[in-house]
Amino acid sequence: MVLTLREVESHTSKDSCWVIIRNNVYDVTGFLSEHPGGAAIILKYAGKDATRAYEPIHASDALEKHLDASKHLGPLDASSASLLDHARSHRKQTKDEKRVELALKQRPPLGRMLSLDDIEAVALKVLSHKAMAYYSSASDDEQTHHGNIRGFTRFFFNPRVMREVRQTDASTRILGYRSSLPVFVSAAGLAKLGHPLGEVNITRGCAKGGIIQVLSSNASSSYSEIAEAAAPGQTLFFQLYKSADDSAAEKRVKEIEALGFKAIFLTVDAITGGKRERDVRGPWYLEALETGKETYHNDDDPLLEVSVDGTGGGLVSNDDQNMTWEKTIPWLRRVTKLPIVIKGIQCVDDAVLAAQAGVDAILISNHGGRQLDYSMPSIEVLYRLRRRHPEVFEKMEVYVDGGARRGTDVLKALCLGATSVGMGRPFLYAQTAYAEHGVAKAISILESEITKGMKFLGAASVKDLVPDMVERVDWQPVGPKL
Amino acid sequence: MVLTLREVESHTSKDSCWVIIRNNVYDVTGFLSEHPGGAAIILKYAGKDATRAYEPIHASDALEKHLDASKHLGPLDASSASLLDHARSHRKQTKDEKRVELALKQRPPLGRMLSLDDIEAVALKVLSHKAMAYYSSASDDEQTHHGNIRGFTRFFFNPRVMREVRQTDASTRILGYRSSLPVFVSAAGLAKLGHPLGEVNITRGCAKGGIIQVLSSNASSSYSEIAEAAAPGQTLFFQLYKSADDSAAEKRVKEIEALGFKAIFLTVDAITGGKRERDVRGPWYLEALETGKETYHNDDDPLLEVSVDGTGGGLVSNDDQNMTWEKTIPWLRRVTKLPIVIKGIQCVDDAVLAAQAGVDAILISNHGGRQLDYSMPSIEVLYRLRRRHPEVFEKMEVYVDGGARRGTDVLKALCLGATSVGMGRPFLYAQTAYAEHGVAKAISILESEITKGMKFLGAASVKDLVPDMVERVDWQPVGPKL
Amino acid sequence: MVLTLREVESHTSKDSCWVIIRNNVYDVTGFLSEHPGGAAIILKYAGKDATRAYEPIHASDALEKHLDASKHLGPLDASSASLLDHARSHRKQTKDEKRVELALKQRPPLGRMLSLDDIEAVALKVLSHKAMAYYSSASDDEQTHHGNIRGFTRFFFNPRVMREVRQTDASTRILGYRSSLPVFVSAAGLAKLGHPLGEVNITRGCAKGGIIQVLSSNASSSYSEIAEAAAPGQTLFFQLYKSADDSAAEKRVKEIEALGFKAIFLTVDAITGGKRERDVRGPWYLEALETGKETYHNDDDPLLEVSVDGTGGGLVSNDDQNMTWEKTIPWLRRVTKLPIVIKGIQCVDDAVLAAQAGVDAILISNHGGRQLDYSMPSIEVLYRLRRRHPEVFEKMEVYVDGGARRGTDVLKALCLGATSVGMGRPFLYAQTAYAEHGVAKAISILESEITKGMKFLGAASVKDLVPDMVERVDWQPVGPKL
Amino acid sequence: MVLTLREVESHTSKDSCWVIIRNNVYDVTGFLSEHPGGAAIILKYAGKDATRAYEPIHASDALEKHLDASKHLGPLDASSASLLDHARSHRKQTKDEKRVELALKQRPPLGRMLSLDDIEAVALKVLSHKAMAYYSSASDDEQTHHGNIRGFTRFFFNPRVMREVRQTDASTRILGYRSSLPVFVSAAGLAKLGHPLGEVNITRGCAKGGIIQVLSSNASSSYSEIAEAAAPGQTLFFQLYKSADDSAAEKRVKEIEALGFKAIFLTVDAITGGKRERDVRGPWYLEALETGKETYHNDDDPLLEVSVDGTGGGLVSNDDQNMTWEKTIPWLRRVTKLPIVIKGIQCVDDAVLAAQAGVDAILISNHGGRQLDYSMPSIEVLYRLRRRHPEVFEKMEVYVDGGARRGTDVLKALCLGATSVGMGRPFLYAQTAYAEHGVAKAISILESEITKGMKFLGAASVKDLVPDMVERVDWQPVGPKL
Repeated sequence: MVLTLREVESHTSKDSCWVIIRNNVYDVTGFLSEHPGGAAIILKYAGKDATRAYEPIHASDALEKHLDASKHLGPLDASSASLLDHARSHRKQTKDEKRVELALKQRPPLGRMLSLDDIEAVALKVLSHKAMAYYSSASDDEQTHHGNIRGFTRFFFNPRVMREVRQTDASTRILGYRSSLPVFVSAAGLAKLGHPLGEVNITRGCAKGGIIQVLSSNASSSYSEIAEAAAPGQTLFFQLYKSADDSAAEKRVKEIEALGFKAIFLTVDAITGGKRERDVRGPWYLEALETGKETYHNDDDPLLEVSVDGTGGGLVSNDDQNMTWEKTIPWLRRVTKLPIVIKGIQCVDDAVLAAQAGVDAILISNHGGRQLDYSMPSIEVLYRLRRRHPEVFEKMEVYVDGGARRGTDVLKALCLGATSVGMGRPFLYAQTAYAEHGVAKAISILESEITKGMKFLGAASVKDLVPDMVERVDWQPVGPKL
Repeated sequence: MVLTLREVESHTSKDSCWVIIRNNVYDVTGFLSEHPGGAAIILKYAGKDATRAYEPIHASDALEKHLDASKHLGPLDASSASLLDHARSHRKQTKDEKRVELALKQRPPLGRMLSLDDIEAVALKVLSHKAMAYYSSASDDEQTHHGNIRGFTRFFFNPRVMREVRQTDASTRILGYRSSLPVFVSAAGLAKLGHPLGEVNITRGCAKGGIIQVLSSNASSSYSEIAEAAAPGQTLFFQLYKSADDSAAEKRVKEIEALGFKAIFLTVDAITGGKRERDVRGPWYLEALETGKETYHNDDDPLLEVSVDGTGGGLVSNDDQNMTWEKTIPWLRRVTKLPIVIKGIQCVDDAVLAAQAGVDAILISNHGGRQLDYSMPSIEVLYRLRRRHPEVFEKMEVYVDGGARRGTDVLKALCLGATSVGMGRPFLYAQTAYAEHGVAKAISILESEITKGMKFLGAASVKDLVPDMVERVDWQPVGPKL
Repeated sequence: MVLTLREVESHTSKDSCWVIIRNNVYDVTGFLSEHPGGAAIILKYAGKDATRAYEPIHASDALEKHLDASKHLGPLDASSASLLDHARSHRKQTKDEKRVELALKQRPPLGRMLSLDDIEAVALKVLSHKAMAYYSSASDDEQTHHGNIRGFTRFFFNPRVMREVRQTDASTRILGYRSSLPVFVSAAGLAKLGHPLGEVNITRGCAKGGIIQVLSSNASSSYSEIAEAAAPGQTLFFQLYKSADDSAAEKRVKEIEALGFKAIFLTVDAITGGKRERDVRGPWYLEALETGKETYHNDDDPLLEVSVDGTGGGLVSNDDQNMTWEKTIPWLRRVTKLPIVIKGIQCVDDAVLAAQAGVDAILISNHGGRQLDYSMPSIEVLYRLRRRHPEVFEKMEVYVDGGARRGTDVLKALCLGATSVGMGRPFLYAQTAYAEHGVAKAISILESEITKGMKFLGAASVKDLVPDMVERVDWQPVGPKL
Repeated sequence: MVLTLREVESHTSKDSCWVIIRNNVYDVTGFLSEHPGGAAIILKYAGKDATRAYEPIHASDALEKHLDASKHLGPLDASSASLLDHARSHRKQTKDEKRVELALKQRPPLGRMLSLDDIEAVALKVLSHKAMAYYSSASDDEQTHHGNIRGFTRFFFNPRVMREVRQTDASTRILGYRSSLPVFVSAAGLAKLGHPLGEVNITRGCAKGGIIQVLSSNASSSYSEIAEAAAPGQTLFFQLYKSADDSAAEKRVKEIEALGFKAIFLTVDAITGGKRERDVRGPWYLEALETGKETYHNDDDPLLEVSVDGTGGGLVSNDDQNMTWEKTIPWLRRVTKLPIVIKGIQCVDDAVLAAQAGVDAILISNHGGRQLDYSMPSIEVLYRLRRRHPEVFEKMEVYVDGGARRGTDVLKALCLGATSVGMGRPFLYAQTAYAEHGVAKAISILESEITKGMKFLGAASVKDLVPDMVERVDWQPVGPKL
């Protein structure tokens, strides 16, 4: 069936809601209540072309996967399609788009990137405001986010000298899979907000750099695209938001197992959306930017509410809020033979429970400070776990993410017992700024920093990194970058 | 008796002092020494129209209540009244009034308020300078005020995962009365400085939000206005400044008991006025603003003194400075059957004494840092009480106010054993900025923050919030808002 | 003998150095090596009129006292005197003098001074640059000076409520002498740099305020002027820099004993000059200010040295650097029956030795941070003494100075065991800004702050101030004034 | 053989690389792989005049020493030489050179230098950007560099009074050699970057000031120049980067032994280059400065890499990364009878191992924060060593460098047990700003600060400086310079 723009334009209500994506028409009426991002955002495009809003945050197979074929109503007629094509291509650039276009032209050469912070600084310039707000924001007052980063600054080294370190090897094994560095890419969604190729950039960069990518459930590239983009033998892990519907969750697990992912990172710290205020404020900022108005008239309807969940808030709206150690781990063991990693452990007691539950590993993480503000910084949780329950490190692998930006940060975590350190935002920024080359560059920076650091610490291999080599200090570091 | 302006104008001394309020003439000669705010401020208006100065800081029934009917001398004659009406309505706006008028027009929509800090920022723009100085100031160097707020930033969470929290209930009972949240409005006076409806805005907002208001003795709305504004079944508590005159104090208690208030918060930390320098400086700032003069000529009379008590300093001038546990608690028990809460406990030892004295609850409070500077921040007192005398929490309810601005702040206090957390300034600011809608909005923000926080902490009800979930850290939080 | 200007002008060398002061000629050749401020500064005025440089830093009897009558060569002849008078009165004002003159006219009324900091802010505006640099500077990086002030901010109160404090009495006795407040004026020299009446302002202000002044050996008013300025019955103490020459020291003690001073504060922390860089830089700043030149030409004589002792550095150049407990205390006991106070105790062990040596009191002091930088802040020394040797407070009185600016600071020190708290700079600033009225005002501010604070703490008299009422905290206070 | 410019110009590849230095032609093809700074930097000048780049960072005997005589191909012909001379002398000054030239003219007189920080401030103005970046930079986020300096601010004094200190003697012996102060010049290379006379300035200044210089292996003056510049009897020590080639290392040791150096400081913390980002960025900054371009075009070759080793990074590229206590110390003992000092001890355990290995002394040092960032600040390592292993100080001498800038810093280290304190950057800055006079001035400032400090502490000789005189505090110092 071929449809005209005029036909589509009359379906703009909750009772009949059609949208156009890439010149095809979809009836999403029945899907409104299931949309992870909520109905309101879809209704904003009811009866209209939604392509520009849809593309950067959905995987290419999202429509096929989530909308029954019967709701794929058919293409627009040639004249309507031509009209929309013209509208899209002649759309006036927004001020924010112009700023980004210029910033992309003025990026410094990749060779001048000396640190992950350098890359982040470039990315923050070339990101759209919306993407910047989504990537960089954290919840409430962002104390845990900043606490993650500053947390590392309170650990200083006791370096050992006069050790044979000419041959230094920074490689390790994670759940049995080789990694060139004790570093992996932590799950972080919506990579296409930063670059059209999205998560594929990360996959390709990891192939070059020899480290493992944990793919987000909320990836904007489809899982199969990622599986296809992987190099032969490249290891991929998968981060799972468990649906409240066990069968839906099982289907997801089977799907990614079939695609060749090698482990499941079950996320337990994001059962509802974090309150990321900078993300919520993004559209208001853009409105003020485009209109030039910064003041308001009197509040006509003071009771009008807004959603405070921002770009990514709704992504977890169907998640299981009733997971338990007793119920959920055995269920997952039944569903898959893949190793199980619990992502989002935020205190010592839960690390102990995870070990008792027999999972293969935990990822100490507070979701980059994007969920509960004032959750203990990750490196502090690791430090407490090492002091109070060193035996846990014998029973399972322990990873940590949140705040690591330097080779020395990675080495601190390894000294405290971590097998590997995850990084999320740094790789989102790297692919934003320089696509796959940025990802490879970030890995190469870390490789140099980690190897130098090992030599300075007197460690020829990761096994030589021991707790005595780090010490938590009681002063507040201050310096040109802090 | 009808009086002329000319007749009034001759009564300008301590020996015969008349003032005009709403075109009625009052002989306040005998009242000068009893005025809580001191005689000087009245004498400034002796023989003149005092309406504008009087209204925003007095309850509507203040004249009836405090001045014998014989001193109500009668109305002005029509010509005098007309003259004053004209003068009031044609008075030239001050620069500060113009600024406020514009700021009110430019308030952002209520829907854009994401946090209590957002609301405070709006309120600080739309408040008159005098009101801003009175509301926001604290004593001396304001260390306790800022210490209250920063105190919360030193407590981080140990969140628990894998717990059933789909059904989360943040409601609680305070002295047996239901509250939708573990939050109440702490007593804070002179709400009309911020908005013409004053404390009534708070009463109405609390009705919508389902939380309890503690009315200040210094409310600018009359107690009966508040009682009338309350919704059916709405719970109100009363904050009492005990007069040094026991019979006057008893009369006040009987009055509010009759009006249906359900508990007495006896304030013990404000027996004399705090030294709030920004409040004292308010009039000088305004003088400089209006005249444009910022410099001075030589000091003609270097010994001329000024009162350092500011707008609210005199409000406690008749208060009982000789209260004791042995004398005052039994007296109050005799006078009323209402539950007794001691407001202004600032150290562990006094909390223990309060429990021994058998009061129903204490409110750990330092009056928002407005009395003794360097009084220990409230959350620190609570923390010490929990560690040194956990049994106190079994004997009576413990509340805390001072510095809480976020749902996470409330949750920290509850983990440490508090039944409920009071907030004063945030609700003054909320009614200032958006009247009753602002109050309801503040409650709704807290509801969202508290409920999200409980899910993240693994607490389905307030009973699940336990001391192990918080940890006092030794670093100084730093971030974009600090 | 009457001399001409021409005759004087030829005596400009170390071998024959004459100077003119108030139109009288003095031969100071023999005195060059004894001058506490060094020979260089005198030689700068050799053969010239030194009146302007001399007056603000010397007592009126300095010439009589230190220079043998035979060296008073006689007056200038009338023509020379008239020439000098004319030169002095027609001297072009410097930029710095013009700035001060204007600032004096623009001082705010005394009534607007709410705190000692307010008065300091006025003083810093009306001081000449030279005086400002001398008063405000401390040694090296000024860590101890700032540490003294910030030291108090780490002590918070545990205030007690429900105590009878209607009658509050802040008076105390110091070495048996009544003081209206537990505060005294610590010795601080060269008050005439700030105001022509110098230390006399302080004497008069103390008479009004009822507190005790400790007069500096380096007072710019003569000791007898101070004794004469004192009100009947007013108590004065004396601060002694002991000369290396015991007989000179004894003579000084006898002199002040005869003038009626009631105690000797023997200074032990200033046996050589502190390195006060801002003071040393003062003249260079003024040179740049007057000439408008801020850059330099190449260094002609790179080995040319400058004195780094500044305005006050040389004042201690003849002091005894070999004092000991065994030798010096018995000597002083022999010389005088006055109570002996050791000023400049900076650690616990020396406080214990002082008690063993049987002195009447100690003043814990680091000379306002003007001697050894990184000397432990005074309040920290007091705190350690109270914890490690509480018995010392039974054996002798303990005072503390350095950093106290608020009534709450005084109360903290008293809670920790101090009998009284000294303040130096605040009173120099007070007399600079408002002469004796400023001093009285400062005392009245402290009286109000201390009395309010006692009521809030639940202390009716200074005896009720106990160690449990203060607690050292582990956070770094931050606020609008810090 | 005389060569023409044209002949040289054709040797520009790895296979045949000629360069011109001071109008002589050298064949460095075979040396490319041995050049400590890497081949790339030489190839940049292949076939060209390298004089300007070569001179400031090479000792005058570098060519003779490192390049076989057969590779000294001969002088340029007169015409070529004249061409190059003309090019050099008519070369247009760069903006950076002009800035430096002006800054040199505007230096303040040496007499106005009151502290080492004053001298540093002058040096930072007169240094070329390249030299500034090399001298001042440290690795990564420079936390250890700033931590070294701030580390000292956490130690406060407990000064003792009433001690005989009229005669104060700050001299000491280091490895048996007299030093006028407990201070030495720590090894720091490339002094010619700051001043044409380079390390010779330091040698001469030390002769005047009576302290010992530790000459860097990377000195830009030749070792023999330094030996010749030394005054009769002046003590010089030598800092050794041990080559991986034992025989080359032995040759170096023999050479400096023959030149009269009195001790070997074997560096163990710099086995690979530190990551000094500001140093690496230097050339980019200069490029932007000269061209005025601050933006970039799209990244043509995103994979183009840059070296991150900066000016000095390559200097250690041939160093022994397999040194051990068991192997290296006995080897060095065999090779030389000179005292052996291990430079670069960064933790307590290695200090203990050094004592067990029987070395004569250790230098606690983290290379000025230029190697491993987050290495524990030097003074903190010394403090821990004193507390945990006081017996180590009996077995060998202990020195410390990194962060000391004041006499009080030196005294703190001595109280904690150090024999002497090294300073590197301060002396590089001193010779940069004022040549040998600056070095002598820095020593004289330290002499004054140390002597005053000893008097204030009650220490007549360095032996009187004991651990009880310092105390580590728990606050973060804040002041005008911090």
